[in-house]
Amino acid sequence: MSIVVVGSVAYDSVETPAGSAPDILGGAATYFSIAARFFAPVSVVAVVGSDFKAESRQVLSSHNIDLRGLEQRPGKTFRWHGRYHEDMNTRDTLSVALNVFEGFRPTLLPDQRRCDYLFLANINPELQASVLDQTQSPRLVAGDTMNKWIAESSAVLKKLLPRIDILTLNDEEARMLSGEHNLVRAGRAILKMGPKTLLVKRGEYGVLQFSSESMFAVPAYPLEEVIDPTGAGDTFAGGFMGFLARNGRVTESTLRTAVVYGSVMASFVVEKFGLDRLLSLSWEEIDNRYRAFIELTDSHHSRWISQ
Amino acid sequence: MSIVVVGSVAYDSVETPAGSAPDILGGAATYFSIAARFFAPVSVVAVVGSDFKAESRQVLSSHNIDLRGLEQRPGKTFRWHGRYHEDMNTRDTLSVALNVFEGFRPTLLPDQRRCDYLFLANINPELQASVLDQTQSPRLVAGDTMNKWIAESSAVLKKLLPRIDILTLNDEEARMLSGEHNLVRAGRAILKMGPKTLLVKRGEYGVLQFSSESMFAVPAYPLEEVIDPTGAGDTFAGGFMGFLARNGRVTESTLRTAVVYGSVMASFVVEKFGLDRLLSLSWEEIDNRYRAFIELTDSHHSRWISQ
Repeated sequence: MSIVVVGSVAYDSVETPAGSAPDILGGAATYFSIAARFFAPVSVVAVVGSDFKAESRQVLSSHNIDLRGLEQRPGKTFRWHGRYHEDMNTRDTLSVALNVFEGFRPTLLPDQRRCDYLFLANINPELQASVLDQTQSPRLVAGDTMNKWIAESSAVLKKLLPRIDILTLNDEEARMLSGEHNLVRAGRAILKMGPKTLLVKRGEYGVLQFSSESMFAVPAYPLEEVIDPTGAGDTFAGGFMGFLARNGRVTESTLRTAVVYGSVMASFVVEKFGLDRLLSLSWEEIDNRYRAFIELTDSHHSRWISQ
Repeated sequence: MSIVVVGSVAYDSVETPAGSAPDILGGAATYFSIAARFFAPVSVVAVVGSDFKAESRQVLSSHNIDLRGLEQRPGKTFRWHGRYHEDMNTRDTLSVALNVFEGFRPTLLPDQRRCDYLFLANINPELQASVLDQTQSPRLVAGDTMNKWIAESSAVLKKLLPRIDILTLNDEEARMLSGEHNLVRAGRAILKMGPKTLLVKRGEYGVLQFSSESMFAVPAYPLEEVIDPTGAGDTFAGGFMGFLARNGRVTESTLRTAVVYGSVMASFVVEKFGLDRLLSLSWEEIDNRYRAFIELTDSHHSRWISQ
């Protein structure tokens, strides 16, 4: 089943301890869709400026991403310039220019309104709500947000949360939204705000999934080298949502497997700058790392019990 | 099979954001043995001063810990005073007085020399080597160390490492010992120094186990409230080593289960100040949290495959 993603398509300039990459194709909707398309067809709703390169469009369309919803408007494409610290866990935004993204008013095409799987990447929660208003009861709605909206649009966001099945946040955002420092308490508090499932992304420390029935914790796949963490969270969401759309069922069991696939996809994207690693990735590589991930986290419990 | 642990028995004064506890029984050998004794008989080799309370001795002996190797000498018992920061991940040592521990020259009793399982808690690596010299080929030797010895006794430590089967370090110590910031590279470099298995303790982020064949990663059990992290690493080691001694075999599979039991024990000790939670703990509680831990980390892989 196909997925619709609404969010940013951008040009990023990234500096990390491993080097730098100026003006590369990025944005939440981009990372999400390049990851999700391994699992299911993806349709993007986004806006770019008149400077958006034919080459960038080609990157997306040649990977089977439906770009009918990629609006091109006079002006410049969203640009972000960031620099990561030595430990890669924190970064400074050196400059950000929303450009045409500032006037983004997402409009779904008729077939997108009937989508089954919808991912609301990090945009103003008012726009996320307006997207939901356009849809006809999707089977699954997942959404992301950021500290800015938690601080500035708290009321709108809290009204939106009961309409979202799965919310993704990083640990700091989870603390901020809930007002709880402890992540278990933060997770429980956020579930009471509406979403059925909460995914707390902890970077190199993995992911915590909260649902009413249970908690699920996975480490991040340990890598020998991290080149560029940009887009890891959206790539995670793409693998996660992609697996659910491909599987077709949402249960505790498929949610957990989806978290593993999301973690697998995120472990690839950080190995090179920007989209480079995802664009060269094969299904065989995904499958091998999925197996390695399962082996990494397998406590051999059943083997011990059976002895 | 029984375990011998060599290390500190101390009085700690602990301040955490949750409160404070002055002059409570602590020390690496204490936490280790109170955790390990749930799984196997434990014998302690340590030194205390003339101020060591009969009540403290009673705490240990009433929990079936063999204290024949607990030497009492004129002078004061080792004292440590520390304060944890708001996030509980870092702490400041406000004062430390080695007292009689400064002159500690561990001497094993004849039956301790023939022990099968030996844990060398964090003491001067020269002393750790002298303990090994006294033993008659134990089946398994595990050891801990700290930044001080890595900085000041690097040569002695590196000569000791090939004699240790399982080394436990925290992430900063692993980085310092290996000179590698990346933990995967750090882990591989340390395995080349001698130990067959390396356990990297990451506090609230869990444990990474490195062996020549594989990596194993577990998260820490997410808790709603952490009261006092003191002793968590030694409690982990106690649960880990305890399970291995009880099981009797050291395989990739039992090592992984041991990491889970270590994590389970560590998740209890931080719930109250000092030893309080471990002293009130029942086997049923351990078993319940073990099951909860397995459920927490179970990716439901096999269920998905079988569908």
